[in-house]
Amino acid sequence: MKAPINLTAALSRFDDVFRPRTVATLNDYKVMVVKVKGEFVWHGHPDTDDFFLVLDGRLTIQLREQDLELGPGDLYIVPRGMEHCPRSEEGAEVLLIDPQGTVNTGDAEPGRLTAPEQTL
Amino acid sequence: MKAPINLTAALSRFDDVFRPRTVATLNDYKVMVVKVKGEFVWHGHPDTDDFFLVLDGRLTIQLREQDLELGPGDLYIVPRGMEHCPRSEEGAEVLLIDPQGTVNTGDAEPGRLTAPEQTL
Repeated sequence: MKAPINLTAALSRFDDVFRPRTVATLNDYKVMVVKVKGEFVWHGHPDTDDFFLVLDGRLTIQLREQDLELGPGDLYIVPRGMEHCPRSEEGAEVLLIDPQGTVNTGDAEPGRLTAPEQTL
Repeated sequence: MKAPINLTAALSRFDDVFRPRTVATLNDYKVMVVKVKGEFVWHGHPDTDDFFLVLDGRLTIQLREQDLELGPGDLYIVPRGMEHCPRSEEGAEVLLIDPQGTVNTGDAEPGRLTAPEQTL
């Protein structure tokens, strides 16, 4: 990595939602930025925890037991295997970190929200 | 993890510098917040990349070849083995991510800046 990456600038380079862009790698993990608007799909990741840090806007992480409300600077790591469904009415910008190869829709049936791995 | 963690609130709970606090874990990685003021020590991590995301203030990551200047929202991942020395004149608040067991001073001689692992 030759220079720092500004996350706001990285997010300004695309508009589509639920399409994470990898901006850096940390060992065998991918560090991504994503825009969220609307509702994602219920899923879990049987093999990994799932890192969310809200950079802008407001994000709801729906769990089966409760809804978690996150704003800028709020971090939540969904435990391995726990079903969750992110949504945002007003829109949110989020930093995600997962092991390389982790599929965004996890164990849900692959569908239109299943994103290819994309490097910004 | 039962509830989201606000990183600003977490940082308001301590004042000492160069003493990372673990706020969450991502698989076998520790997610930490740290305050930086003054100069750290030159070191490398032979076994891991080293994740820095500036949350507030300004941080210089000195490398042997150049100085990198980071402000809020700037991410830099020091490649495995690369010698670096963080410093901040005005002070900075930073999110760090490293594998569990990673020593903050890396391969430098242990000294007064070598921090114990602390959970907030």
